[in-house]
Amino acid sequence: MRKMSFRVVKGGGVTSPKGFLASGVRCGIKRARRTDFAMIASETTAVACGVFTTNQIKAAPVRVSMGHIRQQKARAIVANSGNANACTGVAGIADAKETAALAARVLGCPPSQLLVCSTGRIGRRLPMDKVRAGILRGFHALSRKGGARAAGAIMTSDTMRKEIAVSFSVGGRRVTIGACAKGAGMIDPNMATMLCFVTTDAVIDGRTLNRCLREAVDDSFNRITVDGDMSTNDTVLMLANGHAGNPALRGYHPQLPRFQQALDFVLKELAQKIVSDGEGVTRVVEVAVVGAASMLDARRAADAVANSALVKTAWAGGDPNWGRLMAALGYSGARVREELVDICFDGVSAVRGGQIGRCPEARLKASVRKPRFKVMINLHLGEGEYTVYTTDLTVSYVRFNMGE
Amino acid sequence: MRKMSFRVVKGGGVTSPKGFLASGVRCGIKRARRTDFAMIASETTAVACGVFTTNQIKAAPVRVSMGHIRQQKARAIVANSGNANACTGVAGIADAKETAALAARVLGCPPSQLLVCSTGRIGRRLPMDKVRAGILRGFHALSRKGGARAAGAIMTSDTMRKEIAVSFSVGGRRVTIGACAKGAGMIDPNMATMLCFVTTDAVIDGRTLNRCLREAVDDSFNRITVDGDMSTNDTVLMLANGHAGNPALRGYHPQLPRFQQALDFVLKELAQKIVSDGEGVTRVVEVAVVGAASMLDARRAADAVANSALVKTAWAGGDPNWGRLMAALGYSGARVREELVDICFDGVSAVRGGQIGRCPEARLKASVRKPRFKVMINLHLGEGEYTVYTTDLTVSYVRFNMGE
Repeated sequence: MRKMSFRVVKGGGVTSPKGFLASGVRCGIKRARRTDFAMIASETTAVACGVFTTNQIKAAPVRVSMGHIRQQKARAIVANSGNANACTGVAGIADAKETAALAARVLGCPPSQLLVCSTGRIGRRLPMDKVRAGILRGFHALSRKGGARAAGAIMTSDTMRKEIAVSFSVGGRRVTIGACAKGAGMIDPNMATMLCFVTTDAVIDGRTLNRCLREAVDDSFNRITVDGDMSTNDTVLMLANGHAGNPALRGYHPQLPRFQQALDFVLKELAQKIVSDGEGVTRVVEVAVVGAASMLDARRAADAVANSALVKTAWAGGDPNWGRLMAALGYSGARVREELVDICFDGVSAVRGGQIGRCPEARLKASVRKPRFKVMINLHLGEGEYTVYTTDLTVSYVRFNMGE
Repeated sequence: MRKMSFRVVKGGGVTSPKGFLASGVRCGIKRARRTDFAMIASETTAVACGVFTTNQIKAAPVRVSMGHIRQQKARAIVANSGNANACTGVAGIADAKETAALAARVLGCPPSQLLVCSTGRIGRRLPMDKVRAGILRGFHALSRKGGARAAGAIMTSDTMRKEIAVSFSVGGRRVTIGACAKGAGMIDPNMATMLCFVTTDAVIDGRTLNRCLREAVDDSFNRITVDGDMSTNDTVLMLANGHAGNPALRGYHPQLPRFQQALDFVLKELAQKIVSDGEGVTRVVEVAVVGAASMLDARRAADAVANSALVKTAWAGGDPNWGRLMAALGYSGARVREELVDICFDGVSAVRGGQIGRCPEARLKASVRKPRFKVMINLHLGEGEYTVYTTDLTVSYVRFNMGE
């Protein structure tokens, strides 16, 4: 781990970077009295890029935003919660386009510079009268202090706002990166809709920004998302408006690693917040596989353990149950030699050479009863390493998801 | 579906075919006062074959039985519950071999004609003093009426015995197939230990028997087992002792389809019993995918739906939640065109052309609230079809698996 070359902005979010405004308002899509419409706008046209769900069934706003972002320019993001606008056919596409066009009109930019997102229940048409009202209300509420309100308006089953900002110096100018996210539904992270909006005032070109964002997503959100599979609406968007006035970050600029490190930190923090705020989660578990024959094998092994319902329910009961981990490793598809496998829970040896370790069961149980612990699996077959974050599977998770 | 050309033997099991004896006794491996040691023996050496877990981490008895079955001859099966003898290293292998050798000595056959199985907790050595006592007790208890007791002694979290027998005529001689099985732990069927022992008095050669058994397993246990992945102990064994005296079934004998059909029926019935006896299961769901681009795609789509924790918890709450099904189809890896997808619950249309169907929500909910229902998914892309059986995911499942 390199030394941190940035500082965290206290109470920071998407409006911490210069030249960004945001708002979060209530337009009535959700029945509950909660805000459900967010707008994040740059004062000037920004360089933009995005990472979208790999699910073949993509929500209408995902399709529309994927088209708009091709030109790598955007002025604003509008997002509603309460309705996913997914599985809504051509009418849904028209609704997403109308949302972009209306927001573009009030902001005075081309519709293609608007990025749209939705999250919530699948299969229902967006109530466009409410969305139209939301756009006007959101526009009027835009402010340099609106970051937290935007972060609040995209929440669904989240229990807390997820935002962060960091700043650092590039060529004597202060550069800031801010972000907010929403998640939840963590038993099968691939199906929880995840939205993340990142803003920065850095001067950076679209190609470099795109490369940096993809790298940061791979090390954060993709670590809580199994097999690259995602929900119908998952979206990460990033806008860079250049207001910091730093020397342009491009190609292999010497300050680029600093920017990357800060961005990695921002997305990792948000990813962890999403995991720990999962529905009914009582434990967050880091599953680290080392010594795999390849990185792909390490990932297969980590994913199999992190996704096993039997492993996760055992953890909910505070039971290490390493036998279930061994079984998951065996069917993961990764190369495994039983007699070489070592497993530790927070440094306490559970399995050594494929058999029960010498550690007293009580110490193992103590590790697994902590709200956060780390499982280290060494396959002793090569250099492949991979880490994922998962949770336990509790009765309250099932209760939550049994409802509508 | 061809007409059934066999009849079900009332109260039948592994001792229904001629020349088979069985017993189920208590040797004290389980703490509870329940039987935990089963023996199934043929009066004469039988033709034998088996299908074993594809998990790379294989329990010691699996390794030993895989070696023994290569010669396609066996006299008996011994199986204990309460301890899986998995992840027990070379000592575990020695224990499994000693079990086979001791049982062979009392039965008077070579140790290689003994097949051994274990099911229960992983990672603990077999208590060999108890196993030794079990072998003697099991041998003395062997009887032509012991099938049900053997079926009882292999149960772990199963709530009921699983056995069946069918008989039919081959060349004027009555041929019988009997079987028993154990399962449970159904959220992730690939991790529930499944054992199945099949006996028959048919005259059939090892090669033909092997082909028939594999075909029957593919259409039954592999339909409740995802991606061919299995637990460390899963085993299906079949013994044919030839006591029926029928004209030998071999190659493309005209009566072979009748034998296959009966065997398919036996294993399908047991597979269904395993699913419906899953821990905390309140609903059994048939997930049928048709119109996929290939059979492999149909299987991917069916497996993704059948394994989605979000889909299964929705069903536990009696909520069809077709949006979660659509999302699962989208990340399944199967080719999907959203606008072509149709989904029906017990014939009631939920999704038509990728969008919400016209059926009233109340009728859909009524389907999903039944203890058994069928989800039919048509991808309208080709001829690929595949069906799997799954269950809902309930609070009691989690409760059960949180314990040790």
